[in-house]
Amino acid sequence: MAKNLTSRNEDYSKWYNDLVIKADMAENSGVRGCMVIKPYGYAIWERMQAELDRMFKETGHQNAYFPLFIPKSYFSKEASHVDGFAKECAVVTHYRLKNAEDGSGIIVDPEAKLEEELIVRPTSETIIWDTYRRWIQSYRDLPLLINQWANVVRWEMRTRLFLRTSEFLWQEGHTAHATKEEAIAEAEQMMNVYAEFAENYLAIPVIKGTKTESERFAGALETYCIEALMQDGKALQAGTSHFLGQNFAKAFDVKFTDKDGTLDYVWATSWGVSTRLIGALIMTHSDDSGLVLPPTLAPDQVVIIPIYRKEEEFEAVDKAAKELMAKLKAKGIRVKYDNRDTQKPGWKFNEYELKGVPVRIAIGPKDLEKGTVELARRDTFEKEFVPSELVVDKVMSLMDEIQINLFDKAIRYRSEHTTQVNSYSEFKDVLEDKGGFVLAHWDGTAETEEKIKIETKATIRCIPLDSEIEAGSCMVTGKPSSRRVVFARAY
Amino acid sequence: MAKNLTSRNEDYSKWYNDLVIKADMAENSGVRGCMVIKPYGYAIWERMQAELDRMFKETGHQNAYFPLFIPKSYFSKEASHVDGFAKECAVVTHYRLKNAEDGSGIIVDPEAKLEEELIVRPTSETIIWDTYRRWIQSYRDLPLLINQWANVVRWEMRTRLFLRTSEFLWQEGHTAHATKEEAIAEAEQMMNVYAEFAENYLAIPVIKGTKTESERFAGALETYCIEALMQDGKALQAGTSHFLGQNFAKAFDVKFTDKDGTLDYVWATSWGVSTRLIGALIMTHSDDSGLVLPPTLAPDQVVIIPIYRKEEEFEAVDKAAKELMAKLKAKGIRVKYDNRDTQKPGWKFNEYELKGVPVRIAIGPKDLEKGTVELARRDTFEKEFVPSELVVDKVMSLMDEIQINLFDKAIRYRSEHTTQVNSYSEFKDVLEDKGGFVLAHWDGTAETEEKIKIETKATIRCIPLDSEIEAGSCMVTGKPSSRRVVFARAY
Repeated sequence: MAKNLTSRNEDYSKWYNDLVIKADMAENSGVRGCMVIKPYGYAIWERMQAELDRMFKETGHQNAYFPLFIPKSYFSKEASHVDGFAKECAVVTHYRLKNAEDGSGIIVDPEAKLEEELIVRPTSETIIWDTYRRWIQSYRDLPLLINQWANVVRWEMRTRLFLRTSEFLWQEGHTAHATKEEAIAEAEQMMNVYAEFAENYLAIPVIKGTKTESERFAGALETYCIEALMQDGKALQAGTSHFLGQNFAKAFDVKFTDKDGTLDYVWATSWGVSTRLIGALIMTHSDDSGLVLPPTLAPDQVVIIPIYRKEEEFEAVDKAAKELMAKLKAKGIRVKYDNRDTQKPGWKFNEYELKGVPVRIAIGPKDLEKGTVELARRDTFEKEFVPSELVVDKVMSLMDEIQINLFDKAIRYRSEHTTQVNSYSEFKDVLEDKGGFVLAHWDGTAETEEKIKIETKATIRCIPLDSEIEAGSCMVTGKPSSRRVVFARAY
Repeated sequence: MAKNLTSRNEDYSKWYNDLVIKADMAENSGVRGCMVIKPYGYAIWERMQAELDRMFKETGHQNAYFPLFIPKSYFSKEASHVDGFAKECAVVTHYRLKNAEDGSGIIVDPEAKLEEELIVRPTSETIIWDTYRRWIQSYRDLPLLINQWANVVRWEMRTRLFLRTSEFLWQEGHTAHATKEEAIAEAEQMMNVYAEFAENYLAIPVIKGTKTESERFAGALETYCIEALMQDGKALQAGTSHFLGQNFAKAFDVKFTDKDGTLDYVWATSWGVSTRLIGALIMTHSDDSGLVLPPTLAPDQVVIIPIYRKEEEFEAVDKAAKELMAKLKAKGIRVKYDNRDTQKPGWKFNEYELKGVPVRIAIGPKDLEKGTVELARRDTFEKEFVPSELVVDKVMSLMDEIQINLFDKAIRYRSEHTTQVNSYSEFKDVLEDKGGFVLAHWDGTAETEEKIKIETKATIRCIPLDSEIEAGSCMVTGKPSSRRVVFARAY
């Protein structure tokens, strides 16, 4: 089973990195901090995109595309936004190269200096609201419900494949509304769409909540988020949806005439998820044998492997395998038939375990005699012989069973790693000993939040939407608190 | 009919620009040379992407994603490539901004200068072949058939929406093969895929051919292309597919061990089409009333408009319209029902003519009495009353009819604007008087090609694959020529 994969217990971080590389998901490129997403990893992203895109369109959104570059001055227009985003970024200063006069190669042409530097978008609020000014005049132009699939760049010093890279792929929704209430409802709706996607497709249970003021998106009045728990007890923010108030409308002078003729600034939201979700997917379900993928997103849901010693055995096995593949495909199952003769079955078993294919079917001469196939589940390693005539139905029901099992397992892990504490010392002990989500009372101040962060590396992941009102006192200052918030160390 | 659209005869260029803006396809952004693709334009791109992506996957390709940035030194590795691509490009020199000490705003932090400048990809051969070196060792790793959907940047001084913008969206295929023959077959296959897509989906007839040496892609041994003719008699290159030989493999040291143990450089192709195709689509079919879209790609294939004066009339009309919409949707037709009460039917008729919706259906109280609907074709402006029970079948057959009619019309235009000439003076006359494709003999030298280009602004669009061997003499030098090539002024 080893596959030279570091085990999770040994070094979780190394296990993750090994797995991403060995399962052919992604790798580092020759460009600092930028990854190459390999076909197997990209196929998962394509499936995520397809489902999310469908959900966005069902909730009335349309796709569009805005420029990669943003003039530097745009960032200065929204005061809090500039501090959050315009700092660590890629800056385009020139638009031409030329051959060096000394023949030493190509150099930047000093005469081709831009009058104003362009920033490679770290997020697109500024360029989009600069555009919306031209699109919005009247209440008839609202709501404006737009999404963009794009690459963005945030210069990162310490990067990790999928989780934190200088360039990453994402979607960013940017909506404009006539009223505050409508914009808040939109931001909440998109948080719910993300939660539904995470739970039903990624099989990752999430806590829905709002961020504290210091963890909010730069320029937002409220940031809604979904928070997931990884197998090492660290939290991962899996998606955010922001209520931006009228901040960007004011910064970019976007006003509309309402039905009654009054002129007012437009209300805004923005929301996004990224290729980071692939990292979350890996870290939630995978094990020491490799990836474990939920059937909904697995590029291959079933792999069929022929077992044979002699060439004359192959023919009958091959025929049975192809027939089974056709039947499964007819039911909409994504099937791979690996009939390469350059690799042995044992190698292939290992390979598809590593790649997390949910169901493996092996067919050999003995199976043909008995009228069965050997079927193995990736999530539980259970193997059984299934009569050939039942195998299609069995696979169909396994798709649901495995999906549900992964979600249930993740829910169990989260329950076991969610702890209520009532004192700061207990809080520190839990963080050290078992990690996970820690529910504690907090006095609501940024000072206390910062102190806890410095002393324990734990941050407030969110103020959960479903938290109960419960009188208590802050574990650090003893000041009154009316509800528990969720702390964790996080990615 | 006016819609304030400049007519094609009056000013073709202005007509095109007006149309792109007024039909809500795209607009210029606040960033020089970069466009915003609006939802209606992007919806067409999404349909193009879906069809192309399906065709690529059916021919065995997988998608992946490579970095946006390319280190400057990579461009120097393939000698001819650097001249073609590394000159007019966006150069990232810094990775941080900071607040100016004098409080005047944000400035580029001079301390955050990159050791090596990064180029925003104008095309990805270099970064991809730098990656393929790690992926390819053996013949078992070949062929490697990969495509990427991405944004690219080529700094352009004079830009036109969709046709030539500094940033554009495209796909770029990059394949690696064990033999020269296989790589050439791949390059030809992808040219054929593009031609099939252009003709069957865009309804644009194309000439398949190869480029002359001077028009080849920088780094290619052969460039295959598809060339289309626009309504102003100018040609437009709609897609290219390159046989790259071993140039990039040598530049990036990508070798493989063959079955017999020999070590050799890998053979390469690359191929791409871009959002430029949207410009081609507009310029091929549209008229002085607005866009004309082929049904395969139209975001809305049918629009239903209710006609009523009094509120009590609306109810019955609305019910009939919704029933019809449901029936059409059940057949897979993309239908829009525009029941806005803020606009009059006449305004809506104009609007959907401008937006090129293939079929318009109007339903009013008189139609309900007579059991008919009014159906209008965008391509021919023909109107007819169709009995309600036949309308679904009629729409279904119109989808094919309109698609074929647009293609036939474009073929007719092209035939009428393709001229064989035998002298240089005749050549010049045809270019001045009617434009279009001009078939002429050429002596095969770059000098003559250049002279013709300078004197007439016409270039050799391609050496057609289906051209007949025909003894002749070059129209300029009189030297012998064995086949005619296709000249035109081009976008």
